[in-house]
Amino acid sequence: MSMKVNQMKVKEKMTVQQLIDEFSLSGVLGAGKLAKASNLLAEMIKDEETAVFLSLAGPLVPGGMRNIIADLIKNKQIDLLITSGANITHDLLESFGGNHYSGLGFDDEKLNHGGIGRIGDVYTKSTDFEVFEKKIAIIFNKIYEKVGSNPISIKDFLHNIGSFIEDKNSILKLANQNNIPIFAPGLIDSMLGLQLWMFNQENNLILDATGDMDDLSNIVFENEKVGAVLLGGGLPKHYTLASNLLKGGVDSAIQITMDRAETGSLSGAPLEEAKSWSKAKCGSNLVSVVGDVTILFPLILAGALDKIS
Amino acid sequence: MSMKVNQMKVKEKMTVQQLIDEFSLSGVLGAGKLAKASNLLAEMIKDEETAVFLSLAGPLVPGGMRNIIADLIKNKQIDLLITSGANITHDLLESFGGNHYSGLGFDDEKLNHGGIGRIGDVYTKSTDFEVFEKKIAIIFNKIYEKVGSNPISIKDFLHNIGSFIEDKNSILKLANQNNIPIFAPGLIDSMLGLQLWMFNQENNLILDATGDMDDLSNIVFENEKVGAVLLGGGLPKHYTLASNLLKGGVDSAIQITMDRAETGSLSGAPLEEAKSWSKAKCGSNLVSVVGDVTILFPLILAGALDKIS
Amino acid sequence: MSMKVNQMKVKEKMTVQQLIDEFSLSGVLGAGKLAKASNLLAEMIKDEETAVFLSLAGPLVPGGMRNIIADLIKNKQIDLLITSGANITHDLLESFGGNHYSGLGFDDEKLNHGGIGRIGDVYTKSTDFEVFEKKIAIIFNKIYEKVGSNPISIKDFLHNIGSFIEDKNSILKLANQNNIPIFAPGLIDSMLGLQLWMFNQENNLILDATGDMDDLSNIVFENEKVGAVLLGGGLPKHYTLASNLLKGGVDSAIQITMDRAETGSLSGAPLEEAKSWSKAKCGSNLVSVVGDVTILFPLILAGALDKIS
Amino acid sequence: MSMKVNQMKVKEKMTVQQLIDEFSLSGVLGAGKLAKASNLLAEMIKDEETAVFLSLAGPLVPGGMRNIIADLIKNKQIDLLITSGANITHDLLESFGGNHYSGLGFDDEKLNHGGIGRIGDVYTKSTDFEVFEKKIAIIFNKIYEKVGSNPISIKDFLHNIGSFIEDKNSILKLANQNNIPIFAPGLIDSMLGLQLWMFNQENNLILDATGDMDDLSNIVFENEKVGAVLLGGGLPKHYTLASNLLKGGVDSAIQITMDRAETGSLSGAPLEEAKSWSKAKCGSNLVSVVGDVTILFPLILAGALDKIS
Repeated sequence: MSMKVNQMKVKEKMTVQQLIDEFSLSGVLGAGKLAKASNLLAEMIKDEETAVFLSLAGPLVPGGMRNIIADLIKNKQIDLLITSGANITHDLLESFGGNHYSGLGFDDEKLNHGGIGRIGDVYTKSTDFEVFEKKIAIIFNKIYEKVGSNPISIKDFLHNIGSFIEDKNSILKLANQNNIPIFAPGLIDSMLGLQLWMFNQENNLILDATGDMDDLSNIVFENEKVGAVLLGGGLPKHYTLASNLLKGGVDSAIQITMDRAETGSLSGAPLEEAKSWSKAKCGSNLVSVVGDVTILFPLILAGALDKIS
Repeated sequence: MSMKVNQMKVKEKMTVQQLIDEFSLSGVLGAGKLAKASNLLAEMIKDEETAVFLSLAGPLVPGGMRNIIADLIKNKQIDLLITSGANITHDLLESFGGNHYSGLGFDDEKLNHGGIGRIGDVYTKSTDFEVFEKKIAIIFNKIYEKVGSNPISIKDFLHNIGSFIEDKNSILKLANQNNIPIFAPGLIDSMLGLQLWMFNQENNLILDATGDMDDLSNIVFENEKVGAVLLGGGLPKHYTLASNLLKGGVDSAIQITMDRAETGSLSGAPLEEAKSWSKAKCGSNLVSVVGDVTILFPLILAGALDKIS
Repeated sequence: MSMKVNQMKVKEKMTVQQLIDEFSLSGVLGAGKLAKASNLLAEMIKDEETAVFLSLAGPLVPGGMRNIIADLIKNKQIDLLITSGANITHDLLESFGGNHYSGLGFDDEKLNHGGIGRIGDVYTKSTDFEVFEKKIAIIFNKIYEKVGSNPISIKDFLHNIGSFIEDKNSILKLANQNNIPIFAPGLIDSMLGLQLWMFNQENNLILDATGDMDDLSNIVFENEKVGAVLLGGGLPKHYTLASNLLKGGVDSAIQITMDRAETGSLSGAPLEEAKSWSKAKCGSNLVSVVGDVTILFPLILAGALDKIS
Repeated sequence: MSMKVNQMKVKEKMTVQQLIDEFSLSGVLGAGKLAKASNLLAEMIKDEETAVFLSLAGPLVPGGMRNIIADLIKNKQIDLLITSGANITHDLLESFGGNHYSGLGFDDEKLNHGGIGRIGDVYTKSTDFEVFEKKIAIIFNKIYEKVGSNPISIKDFLHNIGSFIEDKNSILKLANQNNIPIFAPGLIDSMLGLQLWMFNQENNLILDATGDMDDLSNIVFENEKVGAVLLGGGLPKHYTLASNLLKGGVDSAIQITMDRAETGSLSGAPLEEAKSWSKAKCGSNLVSVVGDVTILFPLILAGALDKIS
């Protein structure tokens, strides 16, 4: 059953939703997929039976998306966050008064000498990390006083950190306040993990690597349906999908990535592949858009918010 | 001089311009580049000294962007079009009553048997091409009656075709009416080129391959400044930049492409490379955004239209 | 019918053919596709009924592949060449004593001031182009003396240039000597095209844009089968495939590209898409490998040469 | 100091080393980078002061590279392995008699019904995973008998598993025998992790997420120099580089990836970026090649083995 490709119209004073409606009328190539993703996101958020799992890989907090994630938590538009350790580290960096910067060039040896770390065209300052190190050690101490050497799950560890954060824009604080669990199976591979290891030179705060899986599994089974929003690939994408394996897979998913399928790596794999593994249900609603998350997700989300308001 | 990355905000009822302003406040990664491109496009269009050259590669007319290009011509927001032959063919296909379609699947042998041609997830029907063949032959005849065997430049050939089109949404017709020249140095490599060859089995309508360069060069020299908007790469990108070589290069350029730089191919080359060749001026304002043209250009343009209104 | 993935072995003193045999035993991901491409190339070259069309896009001559192309012509392992104008220009540049260079950095404004043009990490010198301009003008003159203002096809134009080249490694000279036709539908979009336009400020050497299509079509119909070897995408890829449209498509094809499919552009399109258009036969043998042509084609070819020796 | 690009020669009966020497003579684009990577790998392996860290992301064991990795361990050509949990799972799958398969098509719902999991064009069978589940549970039991509820590091956990494997081609067994430590900070996100969680429904085998960092840090400091070989990106790439942070970064690194830099994600980040973070030393020797690991690494390694023999 073929449909006609309608030629899009662009005009002054358009709202994002009007633009996405034009994409929808066209229905093909990237624009068509973006419109489908935006509509699916609106459905996921609106549907009370669907738990929305948000997966974050890549430098999303350094890349200007911290408030967007924070608002999704604050408004309870997502039910669960799975992220790299880096995004947590950078959330804390800002909570402790640090910032991310732009405009510092691409001479990495010079940046090194100036105490500047580079992530694409985003930069951090070592002075901000020094503050981070001091403040996070204080928080580790408070948690250690509470749990001692009893192994603690990464989810509970992050929930605890969130309880000690004052910054009202913090992803960790808002997740704590709103009881949105954060999973970060690769947490240890981050500056936060490094600091924990340093803390443990004289302490014994043990993160139990498998400790989260009971909680994650329970959430999967407690919810009628799961919708996954996969920003970037990596371990967060895999963990998000794999956590649904025992229940036959997610019911819907949106993926935004620039990685490609041909290498066989999961990061660029088509969502359909997840069906073969029962990580996405046969018949599930799956939409992939190829492109830059910092452009595409705000666009998709702005359109979806209009649809659900 | 470092700047702070501001965390973006997304909310209901946003206009495209508000979203791009958020991208601008962040200023980094894809979002930052997109905002710069949108602002630069607004500047190019507003500046009366700048002639805007629009280059089209890839299936933009089949991909829903015909009206967008047509409106840029109608509103004289561009001064010159450089395109693949395919986009012209597909403009004519729609002018003659044909359409582009979606939703026909990916079994190419089955599509072949059904007379369907596939371009990604866009489709054409052979019945529409049959109409195209008949109607374009009539137009060739009219042009041949007019010019005979005197070599004609591709630009003049396309201008002539435009004069015989009735469809008021046609890129070719609007370009004719508004005196926007269309250049298509690889025209012959298209269904339009194929039909011309067939027509010439019994006629002798000669396209002079170098015939356009005087006109193109004159336009370059007549204008104080040139701004290039490069949608996709390929021959149109190269021709657009190379046409400015004799005057030291374009003054500004925007490029949207998914191709990558590492192969050395021009399609994915960074715009900066054009400076070494004097195809972009040293000191010119150059912005590249990586991604899908059907998403990014409508977004960039909608933002720019707000800025200039 | 599933097959087992054999784990590859790598050892000292391997021949390229042994490495490709390991790829073949594995049979999956990039390695599997590369082995299939190498085996298919051997078949195409060996099969006397198959005419091999080689399509060149991207900076292959600047990128060190000039001898490889020249040898394929000299050994009559290909029957026809379709190329961008740039590869012809760079072949001539070397024929006239110029070179391509490496190691000159990435500061494009500085390169510009030093008269250096950049193509990725390959460089040209303006002094070499000055020699090119003088010598090609002499050749244009000789051709103009011969053909005058009678429109000449691009194929014949290039054949004529080849007859005036002395460098025995020249692609153009070898093609002339071995009667391998060269097609370059976008020739005009190159430094060679620019020089022709300059020559025509005082002369009238007319390239007939559609002039090649009779010859190309005849070659397609004269050969029992056509095998296409598509290095890079662009106009050469399209022209190569489209030239086979009237006979129902190529019988086999190999494509090496880094472009991706999602934009719908032909450069990154899967070869299977060509079946829908009758540019590749239903049932044809099509192999795509994603990667850098300068690595993959020498590898594929070295393996194929062993198979046919 | 510019160098001439030498045009490559390809002929019959070439050895891989001869082909790479041609790449080296050209010195540009992908071929030039591949030759540099191969030469650098030979240097890393030969230099007794350099510890070679091999990082694995993506489906390398499923993709036919198990023996290649196993041989590097057996020949003590690497000193340390950092990998995703998936590559360990798939090594075990083969150790327990399972296989990887090809040729099963791309209909993921049909594959699901047949108990087939898809990774690009590689496939696994659920029957093989059933054997895996039984046999790994037996091994978990043996380890649990030994360590009880005392938290164990992931490195020690994997070393223990290796001690119970009989398959002489097993990466885990060979690593155990040769005392090559394996780090897998995201281990839990794999089928092996899932089985451990299931085992822990009735047991309490605790993996200490930060437990490896002492050992890893010691290895970094014990060695004069570190050379990193990064196959794919992801968490293994980050962990490999970050583990060298406290000593000022790696001394040399090779990266093979298809991911791109523009998103800011580490997987596609240029190695130079690591200098800003002191994850690679200022002045370190860094070579990136863009492409498919299953093609490029065997090629690079075969060339390097010739150089060091």
